[in-house]
Amino acid sequence: MTHAVALPPWLVLDPLLLQWLQEDIGRGDRTTQGLFPMSAPHGQAQWICKEAGMMAGLPIAARVFEKVDAGVVFTPAVAEGNWCEPGQAIAQLQGPLDALLMGERVALNLAMRLSGIATATHRYVAHIAQHPAQLVDTRKTTPGLRLLEKYATRVGGAMNHRAGLDDAVMIKDNHIQAAGGIKPAIALIRAQMPYPLTVEVETETLEQVEEALQHGADIIMLDNMSLLQMTQAVQVIRQMGDRIKIEASGNITLDTIQAVAETGVDFISTSAPITRSTWLDLSMRMG
Amino acid sequence: MTHAVALPPWLVLDPLLLQWLQEDIGRGDRTTQGLFPMSAPHGQAQWICKEAGMMAGLPIAARVFEKVDAGVVFTPAVAEGNWCEPGQAIAQLQGPLDALLMGERVALNLAMRLSGIATATHRYVAHIAQHPAQLVDTRKTTPGLRLLEKYATRVGGAMNHRAGLDDAVMIKDNHIQAAGGIKPAIALIRAQMPYPLTVEVETETLEQVEEALQHGADIIMLDNMSLLQMTQAVQVIRQMGDRIKIEASGNITLDTIQAVAETGVDFISTSAPITRSTWLDLSMRMG
Amino acid sequence: MTHAVALPPWLVLDPLLLQWLQEDIGRGDRTTQGLFPMSAPHGQAQWICKEAGMMAGLPIAARVFEKVDAGVVFTPAVAEGNWCEPGQAIAQLQGPLDALLMGERVALNLAMRLSGIATATHRYVAHIAQHPAQLVDTRKTTPGLRLLEKYATRVGGAMNHRAGLDDAVMIKDNHIQAAGGIKPAIALIRAQMPYPLTVEVETETLEQVEEALQHGADIIMLDNMSLLQMTQAVQVIRQMGDRIKIEASGNITLDTIQAVAETGVDFISTSAPITRSTWLDLSMRMG
Amino acid sequence: MTHAVALPPWLVLDPLLLQWLQEDIGRGDRTTQGLFPMSAPHGQAQWICKEAGMMAGLPIAARVFEKVDAGVVFTPAVAEGNWCEPGQAIAQLQGPLDALLMGERVALNLAMRLSGIATATHRYVAHIAQHPAQLVDTRKTTPGLRLLEKYATRVGGAMNHRAGLDDAVMIKDNHIQAAGGIKPAIALIRAQMPYPLTVEVETETLEQVEEALQHGADIIMLDNMSLLQMTQAVQVIRQMGDRIKIEASGNITLDTIQAVAETGVDFISTSAPITRSTWLDLSMRMG
Amino acid sequence: MTHAVALPPWLVLDPLLLQWLQEDIGRGDRTTQGLFPMSAPHGQAQWICKEAGMMAGLPIAARVFEKVDAGVVFTPAVAEGNWCEPGQAIAQLQGPLDALLMGERVALNLAMRLSGIATATHRYVAHIAQHPAQLVDTRKTTPGLRLLEKYATRVGGAMNHRAGLDDAVMIKDNHIQAAGGIKPAIALIRAQMPYPLTVEVETETLEQVEEALQHGADIIMLDNMSLLQMTQAVQVIRQMGDRIKIEASGNITLDTIQAVAETGVDFISTSAPITRSTWLDLSMRMG
Amino acid sequence: MTHAVALPPWLVLDPLLLQWLQEDIGRGDRTTQGLFPMSAPHGQAQWICKEAGMMAGLPIAARVFEKVDAGVVFTPAVAEGNWCEPGQAIAQLQGPLDALLMGERVALNLAMRLSGIATATHRYVAHIAQHPAQLVDTRKTTPGLRLLEKYATRVGGAMNHRAGLDDAVMIKDNHIQAAGGIKPAIALIRAQMPYPLTVEVETETLEQVEEALQHGADIIMLDNMSLLQMTQAVQVIRQMGDRIKIEASGNITLDTIQAVAETGVDFISTSAPITRSTWLDLSMRMG
Repeated sequence: MTHAVALPPWLVLDPLLLQWLQEDIGRGDRTTQGLFPMSAPHGQAQWICKEAGMMAGLPIAARVFEKVDAGVVFTPAVAEGNWCEPGQAIAQLQGPLDALLMGERVALNLAMRLSGIATATHRYVAHIAQHPAQLVDTRKTTPGLRLLEKYATRVGGAMNHRAGLDDAVMIKDNHIQAAGGIKPAIALIRAQMPYPLTVEVETETLEQVEEALQHGADIIMLDNMSLLQMTQAVQVIRQMGDRIKIEASGNITLDTIQAVAETGVDFISTSAPITRSTWLDLSMRMG
Repeated sequence: MTHAVALPPWLVLDPLLLQWLQEDIGRGDRTTQGLFPMSAPHGQAQWICKEAGMMAGLPIAARVFEKVDAGVVFTPAVAEGNWCEPGQAIAQLQGPLDALLMGERVALNLAMRLSGIATATHRYVAHIAQHPAQLVDTRKTTPGLRLLEKYATRVGGAMNHRAGLDDAVMIKDNHIQAAGGIKPAIALIRAQMPYPLTVEVETETLEQVEEALQHGADIIMLDNMSLLQMTQAVQVIRQMGDRIKIEASGNITLDTIQAVAETGVDFISTSAPITRSTWLDLSMRMG
Repeated sequence: MTHAVALPPWLVLDPLLLQWLQEDIGRGDRTTQGLFPMSAPHGQAQWICKEAGMMAGLPIAARVFEKVDAGVVFTPAVAEGNWCEPGQAIAQLQGPLDALLMGERVALNLAMRLSGIATATHRYVAHIAQHPAQLVDTRKTTPGLRLLEKYATRVGGAMNHRAGLDDAVMIKDNHIQAAGGIKPAIALIRAQMPYPLTVEVETETLEQVEEALQHGADIIMLDNMSLLQMTQAVQVIRQMGDRIKIEASGNITLDTIQAVAETGVDFISTSAPITRSTWLDLSMRMG
Repeated sequence: MTHAVALPPWLVLDPLLLQWLQEDIGRGDRTTQGLFPMSAPHGQAQWICKEAGMMAGLPIAARVFEKVDAGVVFTPAVAEGNWCEPGQAIAQLQGPLDALLMGERVALNLAMRLSGIATATHRYVAHIAQHPAQLVDTRKTTPGLRLLEKYATRVGGAMNHRAGLDDAVMIKDNHIQAAGGIKPAIALIRAQMPYPLTVEVETETLEQVEEALQHGADIIMLDNMSLLQMTQAVQVIRQMGDRIKIEASGNITLDTIQAVAETGVDFISTSAPITRSTWLDLSMRMG
Repeated sequence: MTHAVALPPWLVLDPLLLQWLQEDIGRGDRTTQGLFPMSAPHGQAQWICKEAGMMAGLPIAARVFEKVDAGVVFTPAVAEGNWCEPGQAIAQLQGPLDALLMGERVALNLAMRLSGIATATHRYVAHIAQHPAQLVDTRKTTPGLRLLEKYATRVGGAMNHRAGLDDAVMIKDNHIQAAGGIKPAIALIRAQMPYPLTVEVETETLEQVEEALQHGADIIMLDNMSLLQMTQAVQVIRQMGDRIKIEASGNITLDTIQAVAETGVDFISTSAPITRSTWLDLSMRMG
Repeated sequence: MTHAVALPPWLVLDPLLLQWLQEDIGRGDRTTQGLFPMSAPHGQAQWICKEAGMMAGLPIAARVFEKVDAGVVFTPAVAEGNWCEPGQAIAQLQGPLDALLMGERVALNLAMRLSGIATATHRYVAHIAQHPAQLVDTRKTTPGLRLLEKYATRVGGAMNHRAGLDDAVMIKDNHIQAAGGIKPAIALIRAQMPYPLTVEVETETLEQVEEALQHGADIIMLDNMSLLQMTQAVQVIRQMGDRIKIEASGNITLDTIQAVAETGVDFISTSAPITRSTWLDLSMRMG
């Protein structure tokens, strides 16, 4: 990662972190609180990387521990977005032993999930590093974790697509069919929606691309097209200048992504770094 | 799946489902509500399996749509826990078009994630089907989804380990070290905890196994032991009868799990079906 | 109103409606529940318009009563967005007397506030009806009521500007100054934000307009400019085609709005229908 | 304002302030967080009065910024309840630039709304300053803001009427009709309600006034009576001593209020300062 | 009970009932859901009185079961406020077996607690049945259950004192001392509080009674006075007519309450039916 | 109390404490805030024991005041679990007078209820102090207060039974009947439930005891048995070693508990310290 990545605001995340801790802790940590019924002694711990990958989520892990006990000090040893190698220490922790043990699982689960996503994203991004095309994510995210998973794809070098159904318009097949065509669909929606919202239209043929162009789409998605179709579509769209953004979507894999980028599209969207990645193995070691 | 699997109670799940819909819908579905500003016409849709796997989460998907609009009828075409093949219809939907489109993503995200877990779980379970050992999960679950992810491992044929820090005691390295030994750790905890809770002790050596046995552990976890060590440990523990449960843990893969089962342990725990599985590809087709 | 206007989704509004009823009812309606300690007899009521204006909020009022008691039937006699005259019945209500009395104030407060906004909006819109320019609102809305107040401006014939800080980018003075210019501000933000978001830049001089144009603004706001400056700015921007939207802002009154529309801007934004309107007088009459 | 006015307790207001910030910020401030993805530099700002009026809400604005970032220092330059003139600085702010920008709108919206109410209230109060009658508000308040709007009317010099349906009894037409008279209405309610609650009866004729007097009303509201009727009613009621409070209500305007006060009533209630006032124009200037 | 008693509104109670069910059910009813993983067969149950007492809480119990499963039909066999004898059936239940078993404990806990309070209240009330004095409760209630416990005292024949710190003013020792006397205390509070609120003053001597009388107290509490003092205080206060209410408080027991009532006070307040009562023994029997 | 007792985690309790304060304070403390509309002077207070008993809940009371105002310092003068005598000071408080007065009632209500439970528990525990049998509580707890009431029984010297329906299995009559016997009931439940959960079976006859033993119950409850039956049951069960826990239940009173303990059972469960105890009388004195 060569650039800082903005975290969602704490006033948005804090209620989620608390909810997740309550999910795990339930009515209390029977083991740890059994050992330390009153205030626990302070101790130390290390977070260790057990599998090479890109770190994401350390500031969030720090906040999780802080919610368990404000006395925990969590000091990252690796910057967000940097690579870690097996055996490497990625953070030092100090604080009441009971808080370290009660916060451990939730904090690690988040960091493992987010680092897994950042790592997978990075692999896709690396394949198109030589092209201007940008990788973007989708709305296929784990319910409840959208903001964090989209944060992780940005740590991994991707950009975010819309965050929900309300911050951009995406006209798909079903919408076009329901409205009786691209033209009426765009017209109906522009009449209702907040005017700054962009309108993206999903197209599967060159005819649809041209229809979308004519009726004022801001973004044209080329969905499941062949490389040849994509190349032609890009050509057609570029004749209108470069204000209209082009997004390729469908069947993007590490094998195909570079060829897609070569067609000249602006964005390549895929859910794979989120839906097909595994958690990066991290663990906590006391003492 | 040859047995019915209990869902978490709706009064526990409903607030989560609502929260997840709100996460996606935000201030409104600009596209769909733009097209249908007032009540939308009814329509039909199908859910299609695009990748072979085990279905999990269909009753939850149905509930998600119901929360968007009580008029949606979601009829599974495949029973929970059954296998689906690419192209196969897994559910029929009928109802207001806007509700179908607004609920689609959250419902699919849940079903894809849960089916992915069930499918992966099933693969592990199949490897030990000839042995009495049971597969169990861990607390490595996505924050906020623990109940559902653990439901999915049960659909896949596993059993659940404890649901949180409060429904069983698990004494690990750090606890033993903090208490000054297995004996005082068990004594301290038993004095504080609800008496019906079982006490599991994590052991790494035969000495620890014997110490745990002597001081009244209900479950002994053999953590990261070699097959030989495990075999010996099982022998030692079985001399006490079969009331004490034995759980093997650490580095469980599809390659190693059968050999572990052959050592005679009762349970084999692994987070892999949750942390290393991918989402099962499902999609919705209108009309 | 000649077009249907989409309500925010009920799953977003319902928690607010409940909260507002709880605010008013507190620990119980001492008067009504004192009279009807058990189930109350059914009764009838009418909502009456006491001041000429445009109706907005009737479907929301209906939902409020439904939350108090599902047995209340609220039948609008005037369509949302239509004009009512003093003395005119705007809705018929039937249901348990206690529910009619307990829901009355919250339902009326909402409808009076929203109708007041729609009425005021309509006055502005009527002044520019002969021009293509559209009236838009701002983020100056009553905390907690943003979605409903923006709904009311749409009922009144305006369009909505962005709904919050997250569904479009608005680069103001302070942002430009902090970033060291329009160019770096746009670059920094585009690198972080979801890619479909539009970027609006607030400009006060023709130089700023040109700078914004060069660096890829999607919307240019002409803030507090004279009519002459606005005319010139529109000319400059239109040379780039009509994809870039132009918004006039600042000191918009019923006296000035027509002249502003004549400059050829696309949108005219003002908070006045929300911050300077009064509630439309409505009342409920039993029997 | 010549007296201190009590704010609602923070533990009641805090959840609302947070909710209102979340409403505006949504998933994040795309503009500000785009510019400052990590911690932002500190900066300064001023709040400026742009329209003469009475200040209300500055302590609440300060609390709003504190919720965004505890590092913001908000220093009022004008005391709550004092008058400000256009161009006058009303507060100095210091703190992280991103927090200043993210909290600005919600804080200003609240202060503008509350100051507008205080200003309008003050105008009514000034008209009756020479009389013992006190101005009081009603339950016509913006849903969700009742406590704050009623706080603002107190800042403006009015007193509050009841806060909700549960802290006093108000027997209206419909209640009287449902109970079959004032006598049974009072009897039924006194048998159920918390005994310290006062009972107010709405009357429209002298006969009703006398009936209410006989059956133990604590407060008698003279609703929509002529000045003559009011004068007679006051006379009748005062024969019972001064324990029974008299409230005039209905069609109170700046033109009529003085004459109403001269009838000798104790309280004059009107929703106008809340339902017919405009926001006081305030703005924030950086640097 | 010879009169109907108003329940708190369901929109106030429902969130509490749900929270209480979630407290008991946690992540699921392991026993019942283990037996009935899918939909359970219907069954029947009876609620039995095991200890003579006054029933309170049956409508609330019915609502609890409804929240678990809308299919449960709970039919009271005894009216709220009636006496039950050991062995008597107090309700019949029908519905899905799992819902009957999952809702049982919360529903019974509520009904047992509330019936215990009603029963104890009734005993106090019976002792003063021949006098006009009314029994009233206090703010000594179990946190979270105030509305229900105060409902139960009404079922038992008492009236409610204020419901919280906001629906009446109660000036105690500490307030008087802080304000520098009864007169300034009343003046300060009347200047700030909603005007319909009554002001009660706690007095311990005749001097205080007279001071409270002079400065406009609406209710005078005679706190911990001897019977002689009370009689004198009543005499003094009654000279002002019967508008000022008199409340006796302190050391009220079944032995003393009748003598206190004979002094002529209007209200006798005691927390004993809530703080010193036991739960009425009730149980559920299947089949 | 000779041992430290673990409190539930603050992140679990804090939302409850806030909710309980909001219940009492409502829209504001009219009395105290009337006297101190702005910041109040600091003052001192003492908590006094008015009835001999065992203290429980002081750390919770301290937390309650802290939530009202972080400036309150609450210093216990008696350790949790120690005995207090009438007139004894049990805590010193310092802080803003308004916070002391606004937090008083909720804090006292909690401490009085919990101390009452601890005191009653202690009486039962003292009767069996010479025996190895331990007293345990039940799920008959006040809705919303389970964690705190179970904390209080531990302070009083008891152990906790399960905390809810999800942290242990309890097979009762109705379950056995529904499953068609103890054997199938255990089998069905073990197949679904988290494997570490213990299975307790309620038995009423020796036959049932033997059946439960054969089919793998972890805990056997002897419900409403005679002393003779209990003695026989203990004998039968002990033949299987001491791993299987024996719990006596039903009709446990201070008169019978010692004889039950003599039968050799491990645990004696009773709800009496929670359902049949009274609040310990405590009060706050200012200055």
